[in-house]
Amino acid sequence: MLVTIVDALAGKPGIGEEVTVQGWVRTRRDSKAGLSFINVHDGSCFNPIQAVVDNTIENYSSEVIKLTAGCAVKITGKLVESQGKGQSFEIQATTVEVLGWVEDPDTYPMQPKRHSMEFLRDNAHLRPRTNISGAVARVRNTIAQAVHRFFHENGFNWIHTPIITASDAEGAGEMFRVSTLDQMNLPKDDKGNIDYSKDFFGSESFLTVSGQLNVEAYCMAMSKVYTFGPTFRAENSNTSRHLAEFWMVEPEIAFADLNDNADLAEDMMRYVFEAVLNEREDDMEFFQQRVDSECINRLRNVIDNKFERMDYTDVIDILKKSDKKFEYPVEWGIDLQSEHERFIAEEHVGRPTVVMNYPKDIKAFYMRLNDDEKTVAAMDVLAPGIGEIIGGAQREERLDVLDKRIAEMGLPAEHYWWYRDLRRYGTVPHAGFGLGFDRCVSYVTGVANIRDVIPFPRVPNNVKF
Amino acid sequence: MLVTIVDALAGKPGIGEEVTVQGWVRTRRDSKAGLSFINVHDGSCFNPIQAVVDNTIENYSSEVIKLTAGCAVKITGKLVESQGKGQSFEIQATTVEVLGWVEDPDTYPMQPKRHSMEFLRDNAHLRPRTNISGAVARVRNTIAQAVHRFFHENGFNWIHTPIITASDAEGAGEMFRVSTLDQMNLPKDDKGNIDYSKDFFGSESFLTVSGQLNVEAYCMAMSKVYTFGPTFRAENSNTSRHLAEFWMVEPEIAFADLNDNADLAEDMMRYVFEAVLNEREDDMEFFQQRVDSECINRLRNVIDNKFERMDYTDVIDILKKSDKKFEYPVEWGIDLQSEHERFIAEEHVGRPTVVMNYPKDIKAFYMRLNDDEKTVAAMDVLAPGIGEIIGGAQREERLDVLDKRIAEMGLPAEHYWWYRDLRRYGTVPHAGFGLGFDRCVSYVTGVANIRDVIPFPRVPNNVKF
Repeated sequence: MLVTIVDALAGKPGIGEEVTVQGWVRTRRDSKAGLSFINVHDGSCFNPIQAVVDNTIENYSSEVIKLTAGCAVKITGKLVESQGKGQSFEIQATTVEVLGWVEDPDTYPMQPKRHSMEFLRDNAHLRPRTNISGAVARVRNTIAQAVHRFFHENGFNWIHTPIITASDAEGAGEMFRVSTLDQMNLPKDDKGNIDYSKDFFGSESFLTVSGQLNVEAYCMAMSKVYTFGPTFRAENSNTSRHLAEFWMVEPEIAFADLNDNADLAEDMMRYVFEAVLNEREDDMEFFQQRVDSECINRLRNVIDNKFERMDYTDVIDILKKSDKKFEYPVEWGIDLQSEHERFIAEEHVGRPTVVMNYPKDIKAFYMRLNDDEKTVAAMDVLAPGIGEIIGGAQREERLDVLDKRIAEMGLPAEHYWWYRDLRRYGTVPHAGFGLGFDRCVSYVTGVANIRDVIPFPRVPNNVKF
Repeated sequence: MLVTIVDALAGKPGIGEEVTVQGWVRTRRDSKAGLSFINVHDGSCFNPIQAVVDNTIENYSSEVIKLTAGCAVKITGKLVESQGKGQSFEIQATTVEVLGWVEDPDTYPMQPKRHSMEFLRDNAHLRPRTNISGAVARVRNTIAQAVHRFFHENGFNWIHTPIITASDAEGAGEMFRVSTLDQMNLPKDDKGNIDYSKDFFGSESFLTVSGQLNVEAYCMAMSKVYTFGPTFRAENSNTSRHLAEFWMVEPEIAFADLNDNADLAEDMMRYVFEAVLNEREDDMEFFQQRVDSECINRLRNVIDNKFERMDYTDVIDILKKSDKKFEYPVEWGIDLQSEHERFIAEEHVGRPTVVMNYPKDIKAFYMRLNDDEKTVAAMDVLAPGIGEIIGGAQREERLDVLDKRIAEMGLPAEHYWWYRDLRRYGTVPHAGFGLGFDRCVSYVTGVANIRDVIPFPRVPNNVKF
């Protein structure tokens, strides 16, 4: 029977059964006794399965001993318990069919050895075949599926908010322009400006930086909603920690305040990290051994402990009173830097910490003004080992206060006509947050450079970032 | 206890229990006996719950009788079996708290009456509050969740392929340009062309039309993968049936031929449609009654019947021999038109039909050439009531044949260097297909205009499509 390698390694077909596996050769080793040991992977789990091939099979000398890393094979044989250490089951091969050879094995980029991450980035189309990129892809999938499952089980609706948009959610963040105008022959209006009314959408269009404002419209009708899709920042921050294109998870809940929001963030993180430990034990063990010895402990720490909650103002006090020397000076009103966030989560508290009620001047216009009129109901979830992993807020649901904030910040009120409408008609307290999905994958796996946890670290065809 | 309306209507808290619901008023009706009947929805299901409010409660005359459609309320009371027809449970209210009023109720756009779809499109931020847009959002979510669940349960990994790309998957389809260059001051090279090396990504960049080519790289390592994300076409086909921005589901399987591909498409459609009938009975009943009386039968027809499979060449014969008058003449070599597809699926076969092996000249370069050298291993799934709903193919895994096709079609081979690499190293037969997600939602709900099944039918801030 045709089986996946994960099932074969678990012995699911039954001991002694004839099985067929299909996959790619990771290594081949020949013994003096006339046996070849071929390790084959098919992506279904971390470990390859070992096929033991006797030199009596028909194509042994013509094909089997020519197999190299990357060749595609179809192997049939008896599934037996393995004598070797670290393996559960192996296959005593009766036939080995070569489906695809490797052209010029000596120059095949994915040799069975350890490659630098830079090298793998340059071979993004082949790196899924490596241990590390395969493990990242599986863990990434598990996190993504768990995110959907968590929200679905809790009565949320997934909303696809627009990717091409005219609005900038926060008045912050550089945007990518989207256009079909002929660049060599741009239409101009009578003032000499570009006439975007001639563009595809009839006005200037950009790639979204967040689906939040849009999803609020659905929240004001369906109570529990979320987005999970790509977002874009055209900043020169396309570094090892930031991407120009990244996926974001943004839930939004009605009839909810900042504490409900923090509860939701905590429940979601716990659910997702539990799924990773339950479903991807093999890959996480690899990351722990080869990438970051703390990665499993980090997840356990999030799962096992109630998150601490504290006010921004108290955080400032703690930072000021600490003996720690910070690069960035601490004063009430500053945006917390990574060093501050990590000190709080790692050294002062020792577990995830929700910091709440930030100064209004460092936060977005849509965050709810607190009664002190100095702070807004914003929150960041700080996690040991990374600092901020989630950012969110209760939204300003009062139209008059929202309008004042829009005016204060010099934003164009007419731009937000529909967002203001939501406050004119049946407005309710509501809140939400954003989780940078790619950053979360980096956090979970311990793979620090974010380019190494996304499926393609650059646009194919060698468009270098 | 705080409960969702779906739970309250199901009587989950228990008869006689005190419950609190939060939501928005759909209608208010007052009886001569001094009772008000308030229908409240919270998005958790199609039906609102009825709260019966006695005029003895404190804010009855000051607030309750002023409630209008769209007001946000929090209602507490005893959950009792309803005497009225069509309702299971209702609430005997003891308190009614108004959370958010409607400013100027007479001009509130979402009056409790039937609106034209055009009107709703113009009020996209408020239309989620209507019966039809709420039902679409829930069914859309159910389809999306079922897609993920289907693939996850079957061992697939979800891969996020790049949105910003340099390549056009098929050499077909107009693309949107993505740029951060200053349009008023474009850099030029020494030939007077725009110097895209100065652009954000260092070369011309576009929005993706398909994740297929990228996901093939993962398929060649992980065997079973899929994409599910937004794709873009800058064609002037932004009509009632096509969008410039739409979500697409694209699985890709290794060690697979066209029949395996058709099996997968059939299994996926059946799984997803069953989920819709199981989980969204309420919404589907509404669509059947008010939008398309055939919508449930259509899903049943897909679920209950094995799909027919036939060759393109046989389809042409059948069309030629039929008495039907077609607008577009039928000849071997033509691309099938909607009228042809629907005749086959609806009249000739009467159930979903997989048409296979199309003439190579009307298909993309990456589809596998058949031994006849005239056709390629392409397939379309035609469904009664819509025509083509899925398009796919076995991919050309032989490098020499692929190269010939690339040359024949005048495509730049160097552009596909990494795609060709996949054929140099351990190539295997593989196949995949694309399902236009938004089109699928339109098919399921019977809501014919595709702008009415996407969350935002235009970019907010009145950028009209």
